[in-house]
Amino acid sequence: MNEKKIGILGGMGPEATLVLFEEILKNTPAQKDQDHLRVIIDCNPKIPDRTLNHELKEESPISEMVKSAQILENAGVDFILIPCVSAHVYLVQLQKEIGIPVISILDVLIEEIVLNFQHLETIGLIATDTTIKSQMLNERLSECGINTLVPEQNEQKRVMKAIFGVKSSVSSNISQNASSTFEDNNRSFLDVAESLIQRNAQGIIAGCTEIPIFLKAEAISVPLINPLELLAKKAIKLAKFSKWL
Amino acid sequence: MNEKKIGILGGMGPEATLVLFEEILKNTPAQKDQDHLRVIIDCNPKIPDRTLNHELKEESPISEMVKSAQILENAGVDFILIPCVSAHVYLVQLQKEIGIPVISILDVLIEEIVLNFQHLETIGLIATDTTIKSQMLNERLSECGINTLVPEQNEQKRVMKAIFGVKSSVSSNISQNASSTFEDNNRSFLDVAESLIQRNAQGIIAGCTEIPIFLKAEAISVPLINPLELLAKKAIKLAKFSKWL
Repeated sequence: MNEKKIGILGGMGPEATLVLFEEILKNTPAQKDQDHLRVIIDCNPKIPDRTLNHELKEESPISEMVKSAQILENAGVDFILIPCVSAHVYLVQLQKEIGIPVISILDVLIEEIVLNFQHLETIGLIATDTTIKSQMLNERLSECGINTLVPEQNEQKRVMKAIFGVKSSVSSNISQNASSTFEDNNRSFLDVAESLIQRNAQGIIAGCTEIPIFLKAEAISVPLINPLELLAKKAIKLAKFSKWL
Repeated sequence: MNEKKIGILGGMGPEATLVLFEEILKNTPAQKDQDHLRVIIDCNPKIPDRTLNHELKEESPISEMVKSAQILENAGVDFILIPCVSAHVYLVQLQKEIGIPVISILDVLIEEIVLNFQHLETIGLIATDTTIKSQMLNERLSECGINTLVPEQNEQKRVMKAIFGVKSSVSSNISQNASSTFEDNNRSFLDVAESLIQRNAQGIIAGCTEIPIFLKAEAISVPLINPLELLAKKAIKLAKFSKWL
């Protein structure tokens, strides 16, 4: 069997990890258990918060990220996925410490945009402060000739509140009960998306892996680009068909 | 930190593995990522089918199960959960090969029954051929003074068809689309549960981890005992509060 084993460096957050795992299962053509891919997950929510480190200089996540990546490498996975966009600011540091590749969620996003959305002039980006301030997506979109629109300051505060809201209300989100927290988070992401669309965004990137848990493609009038779904599909292709690893 | 790390020997099937992970997340009280528990999952769907081995003497799952358990042990987990009831027929063999405990889903089920359902005279068991023929649950229920009712032969065939149906239609099950496969599987489990209730079952054990993905407590008139939910809650208690490991 030439199939590759997929590693997930998870826990950032746990719910995004669950959703990535679900996306891998539901996008794998399978008639029986054995048709599915081997997936090894280290859901390590003890990794210090990426945004709090990057913005407020609190404890760095890097050493704990390296430990989890090494566990996956020792377990025999062929490549690693990280279901957290913000964590990708530490990717160069992390990659130096391990002998297997991390498939960057940014590369996968940009590849999708080059393939399917390069006709757009302006894309709206909803993401954490870290992802926005680091410019890691904006710069690459700019290289594709696409302008990036980000939320206004007060809108960005709502985004961050809703992202941390996801992390504090896992059960209501997963079961999609009509809890007030669920409704509030949902409303925040939707309002911000609509505001970006009004400002001429022709597509929206759900640039934090907590966002597509709430904001659904059918809720907005322009394409929603969902990195978790793209990362899952890329991982399946690599695991099933790639010879380069 | 004294919290224990949870290991999941998964892939039997992948969807039950996803549901166990979800049950752990939604039953963990958490305000932020870091409040969640460390969970390491080896979703290894390449493990040969348990029922096909036990009933038809096809390839044994045990060596692949041992390899995955050793990966989890080397990754540093404190105990292992197996989201597959049938796989527990191999538990004694598996436990000899590793130095950390597997928390038996059968023990957790029996504990729940002793605590909350010992007043019942008869419980219906919906499960794989392997679980039923091995008598692994019946014997222990009998020790609690409870009779076990199992499906008639033609009903059992429908159960097995529906269980293998779950494994072949992951995406439609998870998203609960009204696909015909989803409806067929759902109808099979419900019909069999209702037949057991008519034959005086005062409770139903969803004795295969694929069943509670379809059969919901609110759909039947007697208590539904869901081993995946019980296993998740037990694991959280052990990880957060136990000193014995």
